[in-house]
Amino acid sequence: MRQEFHKLAQLYKNALLNDVLPFWEQHSIDWEQGGYFTCLDREGNVYDTDKFIWLQNRQVWTFSMLYNQLEKRENWLQIATNGANFLSQHGRDADGNWYFSLTREGQPLVQPYNIFSDCFAAMAFSQYALACGEDWARDVAMQAYNNVLRRKDNPKGKYTKTYPGTRPMKSLAVPMILANLTLEMAWLLPNETLEQVLDMTVQEVMNDFLDKKQGLMYENIAPDGSHIDCFEGRVINPGHGIEAMWFIMDIARRRNDTQTINQAVDVVINILNFAWDSEYGGLYYFMDAKGYPPQQLEWDQKLWWVHLETLVALAMGYRLTGRDICWEWYQKVHDYAWSHFADSQHGEWFGYLNRRGEVLLNLKGGKWKGCFHVPRALYLCWQQFEALGAQ
Amino acid sequence: MRQEFHKLAQLYKNALLNDVLPFWEQHSIDWEQGGYFTCLDREGNVYDTDKFIWLQNRQVWTFSMLYNQLEKRENWLQIATNGANFLSQHGRDADGNWYFSLTREGQPLVQPYNIFSDCFAAMAFSQYALACGEDWARDVAMQAYNNVLRRKDNPKGKYTKTYPGTRPMKSLAVPMILANLTLEMAWLLPNETLEQVLDMTVQEVMNDFLDKKQGLMYENIAPDGSHIDCFEGRVINPGHGIEAMWFIMDIARRRNDTQTINQAVDVVINILNFAWDSEYGGLYYFMDAKGYPPQQLEWDQKLWWVHLETLVALAMGYRLTGRDICWEWYQKVHDYAWSHFADSQHGEWFGYLNRRGEVLLNLKGGKWKGCFHVPRALYLCWQQFEALGAQ
Repeated sequence: MRQEFHKLAQLYKNALLNDVLPFWEQHSIDWEQGGYFTCLDREGNVYDTDKFIWLQNRQVWTFSMLYNQLEKRENWLQIATNGANFLSQHGRDADGNWYFSLTREGQPLVQPYNIFSDCFAAMAFSQYALACGEDWARDVAMQAYNNVLRRKDNPKGKYTKTYPGTRPMKSLAVPMILANLTLEMAWLLPNETLEQVLDMTVQEVMNDFLDKKQGLMYENIAPDGSHIDCFEGRVINPGHGIEAMWFIMDIARRRNDTQTINQAVDVVINILNFAWDSEYGGLYYFMDAKGYPPQQLEWDQKLWWVHLETLVALAMGYRLTGRDICWEWYQKVHDYAWSHFADSQHGEWFGYLNRRGEVLLNLKGGKWKGCFHVPRALYLCWQQFEALGAQ
Repeated sequence: MRQEFHKLAQLYKNALLNDVLPFWEQHSIDWEQGGYFTCLDREGNVYDTDKFIWLQNRQVWTFSMLYNQLEKRENWLQIATNGANFLSQHGRDADGNWYFSLTREGQPLVQPYNIFSDCFAAMAFSQYALACGEDWARDVAMQAYNNVLRRKDNPKGKYTKTYPGTRPMKSLAVPMILANLTLEMAWLLPNETLEQVLDMTVQEVMNDFLDKKQGLMYENIAPDGSHIDCFEGRVINPGHGIEAMWFIMDIARRRNDTQTINQAVDVVINILNFAWDSEYGGLYYFMDAKGYPPQQLEWDQKLWWVHLETLVALAMGYRLTGRDICWEWYQKVHDYAWSHFADSQHGEWFGYLNRRGEVLLNLKGGKWKGCFHVPRALYLCWQQFEALGAQ
């Protein structure tokens, strides 16, 4: 097995350093106007120049994180700086809230209509501040983090379309992002705040959003944790639930909480059993908990991030628990993901396949796919298998 | 040919009266709480009881219209009344704007975040007022129509996420719906207003939204009619463009404007050439004018309304112009639509197929599909072929 783990570590390392990062380094940097192009076709040609704040911040995060964790490559810091400067200059409105998108030149296009732009800004500038050592970057990170805390109970503010009171609902996205973000910000937060936020999010995710009978993670529930029988209340987002579980494992590992780690692994396996397409392979994008038709027309598509987050969760689960079921599922998902998403001809990974696993959108980046899930998952899987190989 | 037209008229009449209407009459009426259930599975079982205002109003319209145009069936008026009473009681906020959705009991769920609920309310209550002869229904219709006129230049109001000024854009949906709606309201409007609105909408659709070089209808353009090179600016919605063209034909026919009728037919044919899936048949849901990856993940799916609106446009175009190309395309789309969407086993039509024409969502109604496009198109096609058979 050590040989096998070593080979996997090499596969991920090689894909990250010699395929995926070069693709983004070569095609996505807007050295002229600052920031990044994320709308790249299969070969890396830019087909749209709008700048989507989630993806801009996520790319700053990726290059800063690699600079901090892997190697102090000057080129990586330059790329991160090219985004960070553009974003700090153009990314926020007068109240300091982060827009959703900008023109290539940095003019605002879409308003700060939820808190996720701020989440990714906090992640990005926290890593960037670590990388460059500048106080102003740390201030940008803390301001964004405080926006998230301030707005988390009403994340869409005046853009909320839900009528107040009729059917109150809370979303997995909020505690989940808060868990991950707070870990990212750990070096900037008082230890007490850190532990308090982590406690709260683990508690909420594992008690409220997890349905213990079905073993499934729900996307939207009533404030008391009960289920709501409507489209939003029935929806299962397998990739999201699985991603949440490796966030939880990551927190539980810091605390040597093996019970929570094992519970998170159980949930991953349950979701996989529920959401694996036994006919064509791969994981569905959306499902209805009761088996009714979901409202998302794209429900049966196979998305890159769903499969990459699953590889991370399984590799991490296996490393932390050694349970065979993780290794069995890892191999199954690995075979599907590497044979369907990785583009051996032009590099990087396809993002969107149809149910049969055929390419649905012939792109490497767009409005929602940028330089983030692929490199992050490749890095994390590499680390898990390196650790497994050393055990 | 007369025999052929007669057979087609019979097919549509039979499907409308003996299949589609009975399906909705039997499964969708909420006699207990008022209004309609629209989330019906393949066999007609209710799987969700939320009430979506677009669909509630559209069903009032359908049964009122048939009562007015086809036959004074008491049962149809009762069904319309069951929706109209529920809607007039629960459908609007304190300012008279129409919500997007309600619970089964009529509690508001989603705010009036755009003007389309009001559009469909105006259509519904105008037909219903004609059917029942009540002044209050006429008042509801006029109030909704005035909402639409008041809000048409800023249809999303405070829910608008677009940053003002950077990239102003106008949408085909607004003049298109206004054209159709104004015709529906003709009996309630001064003739001068009617002609003025119709002139304005025909002008705007055929000059601004129609790209004369490509012969394609764009969904979003700059205020001066120029194209904008971004996802929204490049998107082509073939079904929407074709539907707009039969609205235009309908207006032009009233005015004996054969030039505009022929131009609208040309556009229909151009869109069909552009959007027909030569591999699997059927029309794509969304396309990018430049051939780039569209942002809509459901872009390659085959939707019921797209094909039904196309059948209406082709039957109407053929009836009004006699051009062979209409008849050729009609037969091609007819064969695809009737063999893929019509459910010979459980009645009514499937709504959502994947690119290959396989059923994607096993439902007859949901959040967006109700008792509207199928019966309206069946009725209109029946009328076209009856007229053709009589020529």
